[in-house]
Amino acid sequence: MARSRFSRRTFTSGAALAALTPTGLATAHAADARTAAAQPAAAAAGETRLVTMYIEALPDGQMGYGLKPGEATIPGPLLEMYEGDTLHIEVVNTLDVAASLHVHGVDYEIDSDGTHMTDSVVEPGQKRLYTWKSHEPGKRADGTYVHGSAGYWHYHDHVVGTHHGTGGIRNGLYGGLIVRRKGDPVPDKQFTCVFNDMTINNRTGKPGDDTPNFKVKQGERCEFLVITHGEFYHTFHVHGHRWADNRTGMLAGPDDPSIIVDNKICGPGDSFGFQVIAGEHVGPGEWMYHCHVQSHADMGMAGLFVVTDESGNVPGGGGH
Amino acid sequence: MARSRFSRRTFTSGAALAALTPTGLATAHAADARTAAAQPAAAAAGETRLVTMYIEALPDGQMGYGLKPGEATIPGPLLEMYEGDTLHIEVVNTLDVAASLHVHGVDYEIDSDGTHMTDSVVEPGQKRLYTWKSHEPGKRADGTYVHGSAGYWHYHDHVVGTHHGTGGIRNGLYGGLIVRRKGDPVPDKQFTCVFNDMTINNRTGKPGDDTPNFKVKQGERCEFLVITHGEFYHTFHVHGHRWADNRTGMLAGPDDPSIIVDNKICGPGDSFGFQVIAGEHVGPGEWMYHCHVQSHADMGMAGLFVVTDESGNVPGGGGH
Amino acid sequence: MARSRFSRRTFTSGAALAALTPTGLATAHAADARTAAAQPAAAAAGETRLVTMYIEALPDGQMGYGLKPGEATIPGPLLEMYEGDTLHIEVVNTLDVAASLHVHGVDYEIDSDGTHMTDSVVEPGQKRLYTWKSHEPGKRADGTYVHGSAGYWHYHDHVVGTHHGTGGIRNGLYGGLIVRRKGDPVPDKQFTCVFNDMTINNRTGKPGDDTPNFKVKQGERCEFLVITHGEFYHTFHVHGHRWADNRTGMLAGPDDPSIIVDNKICGPGDSFGFQVIAGEHVGPGEWMYHCHVQSHADMGMAGLFVVTDESGNVPGGGGH
Ligand SMILES: [Cu+2]
Ligand SMILES: [Cu+2]
Ligand SMILES: [Cu+2]
Repeated sequence: MARSRFSRRTFTSGAALAALTPTGLATAHAADARTAAAQPAAAAAGETRLVTMYIEALPDGQMGYGLKPGEATIPGPLLEMYEGDTLHIEVVNTLDVAASLHVHGVDYEIDSDGTHMTDSVVEPGQKRLYTWKSHEPGKRADGTYVHGSAGYWHYHDHVVGTHHGTGGIRNGLYGGLIVRRKGDPVPDKQFTCVFNDMTINNRTGKPGDDTPNFKVKQGERCEFLVITHGEFYHTFHVHGHRWADNRTGMLAGPDDPSIIVDNKICGPGDSFGFQVIAGEHVGPGEWMYHCHVQSHADMGMAGLFVVTDESGNVPGGGGH
Repeated sequence: MARSRFSRRTFTSGAALAALTPTGLATAHAADARTAAAQPAAAAAGETRLVTMYIEALPDGQMGYGLKPGEATIPGPLLEMYEGDTLHIEVVNTLDVAASLHVHGVDYEIDSDGTHMTDSVVEPGQKRLYTWKSHEPGKRADGTYVHGSAGYWHYHDHVVGTHHGTGGIRNGLYGGLIVRRKGDPVPDKQFTCVFNDMTINNRTGKPGDDTPNFKVKQGERCEFLVITHGEFYHTFHVHGHRWADNRTGMLAGPDDPSIIVDNKICGPGDSFGFQVIAGEHVGPGEWMYHCHVQSHADMGMAGLFVVTDESGNVPGGGGH
Repeated sequence: MARSRFSRRTFTSGAALAALTPTGLATAHAADARTAAAQPAAAAAGETRLVTMYIEALPDGQMGYGLKPGEATIPGPLLEMYEGDTLHIEVVNTLDVAASLHVHGVDYEIDSDGTHMTDSVVEPGQKRLYTWKSHEPGKRADGTYVHGSAGYWHYHDHVVGTHHGTGGIRNGLYGGLIVRRKGDPVPDKQFTCVFNDMTINNRTGKPGDDTPNFKVKQGERCEFLVITHGEFYHTFHVHGHRWADNRTGMLAGPDDPSIIVDNKICGPGDSFGFQVIAGEHVGPGEWMYHCHVQSHADMGMAGLFVVTDESGNVPGGGGH
């Protein structure tokens, strides 16, 4: 298996890839064989990888996904694929209740759905293999176009608390998934921002529970992945930077009619992403990002996109 | 009048087209003459049809539109046009209160607005002719482009309860309208999903009031029309299938920059639609569709998109 | 400084441009020099203008921006730029509390952010220069495209009441900003519609506090700028007219896949705009525009887009 495209960036939490053991390979092959039988045309042209995800209890009743025991985070590790890749995820449930892994955007058979209804959950103390595939754009026999899997997606529990995973999601069982198209620009820095009920990444913004800040250097290509969960709609806004409301967040060319925005309404289950060049046209500074619903911002749904100059300094008031 | 394009699919509720009687034709011609005088350039290039819609009381205080007496449904019949077609709808109001027919997306003169303010409502026991036209894309004299009428639209009452039809809509007076462009792919199966307050198609999902399931065979081209009404925002999500967030829900070609989604926020009055190939890339299964607002899903805003294999079987747990 | 592109339309409230005094020029040059040093490549190719904005108290605790003393309005004056233009705005704060000017969509350095955190607010009785730049589309060295600044944007206070300007915005401190691309069609008439909490332009629609109507002649090119502020999501709907959900609201050409809508969900901080030809395909009439959330419409979030015929007459009921 070629590993060239797999780098530390793949998992921004810094966890290493679980090595493909013979056992892992055997499991993966079994899954592949099953898939191939069901849908021969969907055979992946890309890489196949196996990772292990641990569902763990965190302090204060929170829960997280992690790539190594004891390393669960909220949000869970940011996963990445290229179109055509296959990802096998062995989920180890260390909780005392059933949990699961449900994904948006990529291809999976019904036994990787992560729902009670389809008997695809992980019982307490057990493990289960979920397989995600992805595909490149194409054309059907009838001449219509098939979109590729590329996108800013996400995964979450669909079991804890209710059959829709309301408790699991509330407690932190969610994370980002980015599927790239070959040729898509690769960012220097990445930031996953999850509006989960009235929190950002389960941080309330109250004293002692700071929302995340995101510090970069002017000129760096920064990727934002914005996910919404829970009950409320929100509007994601960032100061001084804008993006195209399309697949990549960037114009595909001079004729791309996409609307340019710096504020976007989103509701539970939605996800979008974009790349900006930090400080482009505007320079360094402490640029706020926040939900633009006024009471949400006032109650703490705000953080900083800190863009430093070449020397690492930031102009402006600086005190907050 | 050519009838070739009119088939059973036009009205998925199965109601037959009301025959064009001499009376009907006379009425239609009168309307055409009036329209032609007002706006000669808008003469329809397509077909002209006449249907009769009955507004009827249903059990438990609900109300519906139907194409034949005693056949009102919630949602009302799915209407279809091709760009350029004209649809005359004679609305018969069998209620004991005034009601109307207001449409989104297509062309109509102010006396087909369906509002009290424009004196275009149907009094109890009366009937009234509404005329909807549509047009193909074009170009204005100043070089700007005129969009065509093609889209996933809808109609609803604008009178019952309040001047915005709040009571009529709540009780079920709504339905879908699809306007196709010549050459658009035609689906094998269609499904209208209306998020109306906390219901789907006025079904609460409580025991005895099941939300709709939608059963198809793998490989069938399935069209979803999603409409929202009432008070709340929702997020429409379907498992295992995605679409392009553009006019058709499909990419127009390899350079179409549209974002691919499987979850979309929507609010009252919004409508969108898309076609998917059932089970494409993912195979058969009981694929959930639901509002992704967690409490909405938990309270019953969920149903199944059941994709069977060639033999009519469905893999997975199957029990729910 | 060329003035050819600056006309009365630039400020629809009818206020004249504050003349570029020597003092004004000096201030502007100082700002330019600072900018040039920080980011030489962003030097504006377009016009540079200076205006003065007065923040004033209005009756009933409301507040407004105006281009001359005593002329503050809600919304504030509609500002316009072409891509490449620079706008210096000297803000005079006549309130007895600090206030500011924060803008969406265009380029500004951190000291024009209009936030406490960046020390860029205007103290009571003081004035402060804010500088907005804009840029044309381009291409980066790495081959990716840079979007231009063109868009339907807006500005608002970010200080009064809370650090997010919740009080200032609620009281009326907001307005529209349109950045055009060279060649974009210029409208005959313009209308700024701000859904601010349960009001339109701070009008409740209750007796004596009418929401705005917008009267035009059939065939006129009318531009709508729709902005949302406050707490709630809304859905903007207009009868009989539709637009493309893209940068301009118009299709860029026959292959533009943008969805056509007549109803759009929006949340606080969002803005979008479009141009329609009044009465195109539908003729004259009193066409309602309203929030399509049923209770919002019923409580008064509705107004009229009145399209007259050539003689200034309007067909239909006319009484409401
Ligand atoms: Cu929010
Ligand atoms: Cu919902
Ligand atoms: Cu509203």
